[in-house]
Amino acid sequence: MKTTPEVGMPPQVTPRPATKADDDALWAMLCPVFRAGDTYAIDPQIDRMSALRYWSGDEREVWLFEGDESIVGSYYLKANAGGGGAHVCNAAFVTAAAAQGKGVARAMLAHALERARSRGFAAMQFNFVVATNARAVDLWKRAGFDVVGTLPGAFRHPRRGAVDAYVMYRRL
Amino acid sequence: MKTTPEVGMPPQVTPRPATKADDDALWAMLCPVFRAGDTYAIDPQIDRMSALRYWSGDEREVWLFEGDESIVGSYYLKANAGGGGAHVCNAAFVTAAAAQGKGVARAMLAHALERARSRGFAAMQFNFVVATNARAVDLWKRAGFDVVGTLPGAFRHPRRGAVDAYVMYRRL
Repeated sequence: MKTTPEVGMPPQVTPRPATKADDDALWAMLCPVFRAGDTYAIDPQIDRMSALRYWSGDEREVWLFEGDESIVGSYYLKANAGGGGAHVCNAAFVTAAAAQGKGVARAMLAHALERARSRGFAAMQFNFVVATNARAVDLWKRAGFDVVGTLPGAFRHPRRGAVDAYVMYRRL
Repeated sequence: MKTTPEVGMPPQVTPRPATKADDDALWAMLCPVFRAGDTYAIDPQIDRMSALRYWSGDEREVWLFEGDESIVGSYYLKANAGGGGAHVCNAAFVTAAAAQGKGVARAMLAHALERARSRGFAAMQFNFVVATNARAVDLWKRAGFDVVGTLPGAFRHPRRGAVDAYVMYRRL
């Protein structure tokens, strides 16, 4: 019987809060993802310092996930808005290139949902999921996120041209 | 025949770029709006400096509108995202309390749409329009914005409890 990595056992990953000493490892994961320019609405030429500020800046809680031998992924969690919107959180995820397709993102999401609940957030929102990023869209949907908004042509994909982006949302 | 201010002649307002010298006038408009906490997803207790940074911070173009005797409104315009999302802009508007209901917001929006076009933006997006803010929702709809997303219960209104927020979008 054939199984896909995404539905197999979750990988052995160990989460821990990121520290300043993890900046090199973080940048090593973020750099190729941002440079590719096909999933994040971020300048593909962003420099290291700006990228790290984006990921680890003010009021973001950053987690790193260690596999058997190396760091395999990271996410940040933050309030998506202030005031009357502060009960909705936002998160973003990056998986190391060498750890793709092994369920790392799924394990990180499960951790993030628990963290968000324990901090009292009532919902999680992704503001800009590029519609062609099928792996992410599928994972979020399986985890209970709904597409609550479609931004028409809001992303200029480096190869596919103008594509939609989704706003995805789930209550916690 | 009865006419409403919103469908009458546009008011005589003169736009100009905001400068540091306008901070007091800006704060005088922003403070009551933010303190009310029923339209912006911003901490109602935000201090002056943080509010001005929010409105006039990095990469925001800020316009002020002068009426016959005083400053009647302001908006900011900025890219809503980077990289593949940089062709979509975002704007926010505030009208002075004494100038409400006179078409100031409509005049500012017309100016903002023109500015956005002249800067080469292809669309304008509002990320968080509180559904109970009927005046804004109606104005944006009349100006060609569609509700492309509904964030369920994403705003805790100080009097009405959990209400939806809209993502609104129009091509330019």
